[in-house]
Amino acid sequence: MSEVNRRFLLRERPAGRIDDRTFELVEEAVPEIGDGEALVRNRWISLDPTNRMWIGETPTYLPPVAIGEVMRAGALGEVVASNSPDYHVGQLVQGLGGWQDYVTASASAPMMAMPEIPGVSPSLFLGTLGMTGLTAYVGMFDIGRPKAGETVVVSAAAGAVGSVAGQLAKIEGARVVGIAGGAKKCALLTDELGFDAAVDYKAPDWREQLKQATPDGIDVDFENVGGEIMDAVFSRLNIRARVALCGLISGYNDDAAAGADGPRSFGNLLIQRVHLEGFIVLDHFQRAGEIVPQLAGWMAEGKLKAQETVVDGFEQLPVAINMLFDGANTGKLVVKI
Amino acid sequence: MSEVNRRFLLRERPAGRIDDRTFELVEEAVPEIGDGEALVRNRWISLDPTNRMWIGETPTYLPPVAIGEVMRAGALGEVVASNSPDYHVGQLVQGLGGWQDYVTASASAPMMAMPEIPGVSPSLFLGTLGMTGLTAYVGMFDIGRPKAGETVVVSAAAGAVGSVAGQLAKIEGARVVGIAGGAKKCALLTDELGFDAAVDYKAPDWREQLKQATPDGIDVDFENVGGEIMDAVFSRLNIRARVALCGLISGYNDDAAAGADGPRSFGNLLIQRVHLEGFIVLDHFQRAGEIVPQLAGWMAEGKLKAQETVVDGFEQLPVAINMLFDGANTGKLVVKI
Repeated sequence: MSEVNRRFLLRERPAGRIDDRTFELVEEAVPEIGDGEALVRNRWISLDPTNRMWIGETPTYLPPVAIGEVMRAGALGEVVASNSPDYHVGQLVQGLGGWQDYVTASASAPMMAMPEIPGVSPSLFLGTLGMTGLTAYVGMFDIGRPKAGETVVVSAAAGAVGSVAGQLAKIEGARVVGIAGGAKKCALLTDELGFDAAVDYKAPDWREQLKQATPDGIDVDFENVGGEIMDAVFSRLNIRARVALCGLISGYNDDAAAGADGPRSFGNLLIQRVHLEGFIVLDHFQRAGEIVPQLAGWMAEGKLKAQETVVDGFEQLPVAINMLFDGANTGKLVVKI
Repeated sequence: MSEVNRRFLLRERPAGRIDDRTFELVEEAVPEIGDGEALVRNRWISLDPTNRMWIGETPTYLPPVAIGEVMRAGALGEVVASNSPDYHVGQLVQGLGGWQDYVTASASAPMMAMPEIPGVSPSLFLGTLGMTGLTAYVGMFDIGRPKAGETVVVSAAAGAVGSVAGQLAKIEGARVVGIAGGAKKCALLTDELGFDAAVDYKAPDWREQLKQATPDGIDVDFENVGGEIMDAVFSRLNIRARVALCGLISGYNDDAAAGADGPRSFGNLLIQRVHLEGFIVLDHFQRAGEIVPQLAGWMAEGKLKAQETVVDGFEQLPVAINMLFDGANTGKLVVKI
């Protein structure tokens, strides 16, 4: 057990990309726990595009992290001391643990107990069997609702949520097209994850690739990216198409937390009678108990493959988070402490 | 009965506004009717923003009117001759009669019979008791679903659909804010139609007016306009707000039929988990029998006031249609032949 609690505090809000001025690394004493509290040692920290929104100027669906506060993040840890009947030492728990070695769990700041499954990395509870899988499930099945034979497009398809979302649409029997950056990610989609086609948005002819890959138009857009990629997808939406608006990562480093210019093909939402719905996974946590076992079942059957990129070392956090915006990760990005 | 059939044919697609090169007026013989056909004398022609989309380059939800074809439009007419058991002379009928004196109705190009109601102008079957009312109803009740006390914003609120949509939201007990151009229209909304507040988009401080009129944010946007007005509304949407995307008139005179730049505040649809849905009234015609009597009932109770602007004279059609884009009409715009 580390003798200190390393913590990354928010020093200044980034104007664009996160850089070495954004966070300050401090060492504090390991928190003393009081009655009803448990001490959790973070082991895995989840890095998600939405983290960038939490440190913008503009309140979003959560209040911005305050200057001087520890960086907010999902984390998975182990109970190392407990004065609470709700937690026992050795237990694996998950919650908004933040960028720090230790966090205190209590009734007012609870963490959820996770099972230990032989042969399954606990980090998957932050990914395919956690928030990531839940996000993909809610967006694809509640909003996208693909039918067999329909064409589903997933942007940031080699990312955490996208790689799961596309596989879920395949389970429904849809034709699934993933948009990702680079030949390697595109090959992962079609060769490993069962996507029917992949569009390499880093290739100069990506628009033509999208057209070729969606000869019958697009019935479902699982949207993670925004910007000109979303615009191109919107322009190919079919009548009564659905858009599950999950993320707009292309705009998260802009000044406005909400993203860049809107889509020029917005009018197609009207002409094609499109149903578009924004969603935030926090609203659906209570469904994890119903959904995660389903995801685990598909994993066991080999229908759903979990992808993750693991970065080793607490001090890597402020650098690793930019991998999300550079497209440097495949699948879920986690930092192992 | 006129001895000729005056018809406006599409001569060239307008690059921007409709002008005197857009249509050509021709005089043809009154059509001879064959077996199973009826001859209808158009009496009222409906002018709607969507007409502009029908003569653009881009196919929308209907194929573009071809060069040399009669201009497509909803119309209300009277059967003046019939070789069909489905139509009798003197009957009032409605359909896509077009910009012409006479149209032939048949089983393959049917027109719907309308009742004659004492004291009610037949033109209302093109407006509040027709396509306009149906549009407002579907958008407000199927998509907007306002609850009592929620804030509903209607753009182009003094227009045909907007004036009905706002009154329907009032019937539901919502706080209703209309956006319209000029003090006169704003006064109509609040003084005659029962809106709680009006925002004059022609006033320099319209953004501030919108803010003042929606102190608790916006729960429902009945969107008719697009552009910067929609953008300002989107930026004030509350959590789980609904957007009934009915029209984007601010962009219809642009080259792209689908409208201008997308909303910069598009990202708010994600953050606030907004449900947005585009709709086209043509998809809902089969519900007229259920909905129109409800609208007529509210009219009889004085809860719904029909607004219309009547322009007299067939030859006015190509000029009158631009009133829609200049905001020169109040309520439903019809041309009386």
